[in-house]
Amino acid sequence: MEPTKKPLLYGYFRSSCTWRVRIALAFKGIEYDQQAINLVKDGGLQLSDEYKQVNPMQQVPALHIDGVTLSQSLAIIEYLEETRPNPPLFPREPKKRAQVRMISDQIASGIQPLQNLCVLQKIGETKQEWAKHFITRGFQALEKMLQITSGSYCVGDEVTVADLCLVPQVANAVRFKVDLSPYPTIVRINESLLQMEAFQVSHPSRQPDTPEELRA
Amino acid sequence: MEPTKKPLLYGYFRSSCTWRVRIALAFKGIEYDQQAINLVKDGGLQLSDEYKQVNPMQQVPALHIDGVTLSQSLAIIEYLEETRPNPPLFPREPKKRAQVRMISDQIASGIQPLQNLCVLQKIGETKQEWAKHFITRGFQALEKMLQITSGSYCVGDEVTVADLCLVPQVANAVRFKVDLSPYPTIVRINESLLQMEAFQVSHPSRQPDTPEELRA
Repeated sequence: MEPTKKPLLYGYFRSSCTWRVRIALAFKGIEYDQQAINLVKDGGLQLSDEYKQVNPMQQVPALHIDGVTLSQSLAIIEYLEETRPNPPLFPREPKKRAQVRMISDQIASGIQPLQNLCVLQKIGETKQEWAKHFITRGFQALEKMLQITSGSYCVGDEVTVADLCLVPQVANAVRFKVDLSPYPTIVRINESLLQMEAFQVSHPSRQPDTPEELRA
Repeated sequence: MEPTKKPLLYGYFRSSCTWRVRIALAFKGIEYDQQAINLVKDGGLQLSDEYKQVNPMQQVPALHIDGVTLSQSLAIIEYLEETRPNPPLFPREPKKRAQVRMISDQIASGIQPLQNLCVLQKIGETKQEWAKHFITRGFQALEKMLQITSGSYCVGDEVTVADLCLVPQVANAVRFKVDLSPYPTIVRINESLLQMEAFQVSHPSRQPDTPEELRA
């Protein structure tokens, strides 16, 4: 254990949950190394015995930091917030913090798990329609929630963890050809966030493991 | 808004996510009222226009507290912890807190959403096998994680949010006829927790909306 060593992020360029953590690390100015876990090559490197030791759930991301290995993107981000509080990714007021977590969990528990790779693989042929159905359902609710909570960003006028969940989820929606026109608040916030450096440097099109043809 | 009014929990006796919140409220000694939202009657009362105003995601639980309405069980519980910190549901040390959130999210994002009512309804006939598959997959990982983090309970020897997620998930596993014998750590912790009053009074068999034939 060398506390001065850079954190090591196990991830995949296109994983939306990995992207959340990449944004957090960039936003907080934390330097880190990356270990690419290709989720499709050879049936998925996340299923290897080696990676199973890193994360028994056989999913990305995982972050080795301060001598421990953490998984689950939001747990990782809460840890970063508690140990590296500046700049903050949460407001200070408990009700606002609750709104941030409510929106984050609505995406992280209510939408993303249903279009996760291992789920779509089990769904098979109809996976496009399946993913579209659950993203649409989630975005209908999210649009209503954001109409109440948002300012410039998901909750008020400061970037929070909710924004780190929103942008990768919108990218997934686009990938699954979800029509975004019924969600003007989602679209507006997403576009503002994509102007920010932390969201740009962490973008799937700019990672070490991004294939040449998908590079920005 | 009358801050002295009791919180109002919108829930359903059998909803595992509602149970998490009921345990938290009981553990912290917070008195509350309940509004039952029957998820199956008349096609599901959570889909009513009235409830959509409470939670646009049309799911339980939701908690009206301190003049605001919150949804997403873990967001609710984090709010309770921040505003009513004693007795605590998190350890103080950041790495232990991260372990608690990692296990909580592994259940709340990695397992529960895949056996949620709206998902099983879409799966149709093969829903039993589907739920079993994803609970088994999740429990295999969870057992390994708990072998590292657990003491008497999920993380060390104090009850934490991870335990509030574990017990309702094990009850779901039993409902879907998952064989629990490969998970001795899960079973041991679950049995210990079920001895505690907060887990007993919040049990699905003892709620105002529990049908007569399922009452303990």
